[in-house]
Amino acid sequence: MAKTPNLVVIGTVAIDELSTPFGAQQIVFGGSASYFSYAASFFTKVGVAAVVGQDFPVEYRKVLEEKGIDLSHLVTLPGKTFHWKGKYEADMNSAITLQTDLNVLLDFKPELRYDPIPEFVFLANVDPDLQLKVLDQVHGASLKFVACDTMNFWIQSKRASVEKVLRRVHAVFMNDGEARQLTGEVNLIKAAQAIHNMGPEYVIVKKGEHGALLYSHEGVFVYPAYPLDSVYDPTGAGDSFAGGVMGYLASAKKVNLKIMKTAIGYGTIVASFTVEKFGLDRLREIKRENFDKRLEVLKKICKI
Amino acid sequence: MAKTPNLVVIGTVAIDELSTPFGAQQIVFGGSASYFSYAASFFTKVGVAAVVGQDFPVEYRKVLEEKGIDLSHLVTLPGKTFHWKGKYEADMNSAITLQTDLNVLLDFKPELRYDPIPEFVFLANVDPDLQLKVLDQVHGASLKFVACDTMNFWIQSKRASVEKVLRRVHAVFMNDGEARQLTGEVNLIKAAQAIHNMGPEYVIVKKGEHGALLYSHEGVFVYPAYPLDSVYDPTGAGDSFAGGVMGYLASAKKVNLKIMKTAIGYGTIVASFTVEKFGLDRLREIKRENFDKRLEVLKKICKI
Repeated sequence: MAKTPNLVVIGTVAIDELSTPFGAQQIVFGGSASYFSYAASFFTKVGVAAVVGQDFPVEYRKVLEEKGIDLSHLVTLPGKTFHWKGKYEADMNSAITLQTDLNVLLDFKPELRYDPIPEFVFLANVDPDLQLKVLDQVHGASLKFVACDTMNFWIQSKRASVEKVLRRVHAVFMNDGEARQLTGEVNLIKAAQAIHNMGPEYVIVKKGEHGALLYSHEGVFVYPAYPLDSVYDPTGAGDSFAGGVMGYLASAKKVNLKIMKTAIGYGTIVASFTVEKFGLDRLREIKRENFDKRLEVLKKICKI
Repeated sequence: MAKTPNLVVIGTVAIDELSTPFGAQQIVFGGSASYFSYAASFFTKVGVAAVVGQDFPVEYRKVLEEKGIDLSHLVTLPGKTFHWKGKYEADMNSAITLQTDLNVLLDFKPELRYDPIPEFVFLANVDPDLQLKVLDQVHGASLKFVACDTMNFWIQSKRASVEKVLRRVHAVFMNDGEARQLTGEVNLIKAAQAIHNMGPEYVIVKKGEHGALLYSHEGVFVYPAYPLDSVYDPTGAGDSFAGGVMGYLASAKKVNLKIMKTAIGYGTIVASFTVEKFGLDRLREIKRENFDKRLEVLKKICKI
């Protein structure tokens, strides 16, 4: 069995098909676990628990392996890899899903065989009933911090399960629309507060180009996005944001409000690189130092 | 003739009729120059150049006089005061105009009789041809800084005049939609840069609940809004934001990037109070110290 990484992500590995106002690409390495793990790997040792089909390209596997990502829990099943086709229109703010082929994802039954369990666990956006099954496997003295993501589809169709997940995690990442949908609160601060009351100690609301908001026991904290004069492909921004946050937390080995605030700063920066090219192309060009430099710029330009 | 104030605003004084999800009020003291001057009066001596009708209530005049606002250029003309009726729906992000009665505003021909001219001048959102006529009166050794606002209606109907104004001011305040409309750039950083290239040294883009953005010769700076769990009435947020910014600048007696950044912090805070009640009701309850306290909170909660 592989050595237990500091952080594991349970999510999707996908082959995407994208079009944006700047161009289209028919085959893009995607999926929440791919973006998350690649982002986190800059900060800590991370593993991926996901499923792919027999068509999954060897070179994509190498992309993750080059970053030392543990693929002992990347299962190959008969059939095709999860495929998502989407497009972005001029405002680049939200993806329009054109086609979703779940393929092998239909048979995804994540089983964490790490012993001990990783200290940090991230449940990316998958069926909340699946998230609950993973949570049943995630316990023991080693466990420090569990966070999750979700999406509008599950809030709509499986609200009770989403709420059960929220009662069992330390942190949740959600976008602004989802936070409003889940709580019925238009005001985002109230929405974040309501989610905080559902269980998670840290509620991180992603606002795309408008940055992020953290609701904690000490109240609300606000973060602008890194201002970019060119956003090429927003796919993976949220997952690599979460990967940056969780990767930094795992590297710190503990979580408190101060560490969380720095982590969100890094998440913001990682996402700002992700969107500069298709898929993981931009992240593959950069080094950890690039994050630190850009974070210093962000600190400077948002200082009042 | 009245003593020249440090700052003068040329704009509207209005009687508004508002409804929001939290209630309706048939008679609210409004107008760009009212919000702007009231906000600025916390920081500096400010004058109002505007027009009202014979129905303008004495008690509204007193509201401004109590803050020491110079009303020597508040002209009363035969007829009724400018009247705006609007409503906000659940998301509170943009006003829906239900009725506009220009009334005496049709005969507004601002004439600045101050000698010398105030050091700081703000052209609130009025017909850009009127703004140009004021600019013709605004010169001399005393003059330090001129800023303007505008709106979608003028960008649509009098673009050439708006562009002429922009060539002649030091700073422009615009909301995100207007910046995109004026430049045809979806990306807000590119839009702000394009406006900067049209003339103004400082381009301040207002993003409502998402804060503000400053584009200057040193590039872009970003500001979150003060996070509020209850926004009661957004009317006047933009004008009181500009009033806070310009009031602080006028009190500093000069403008550089550092001073502008602090000024935008104060503008953000003033606007955060404005929206907590109808009209000027909330600003009338607070003191300058309240701004300082809330600015310290904002600095703390947006520090990465």
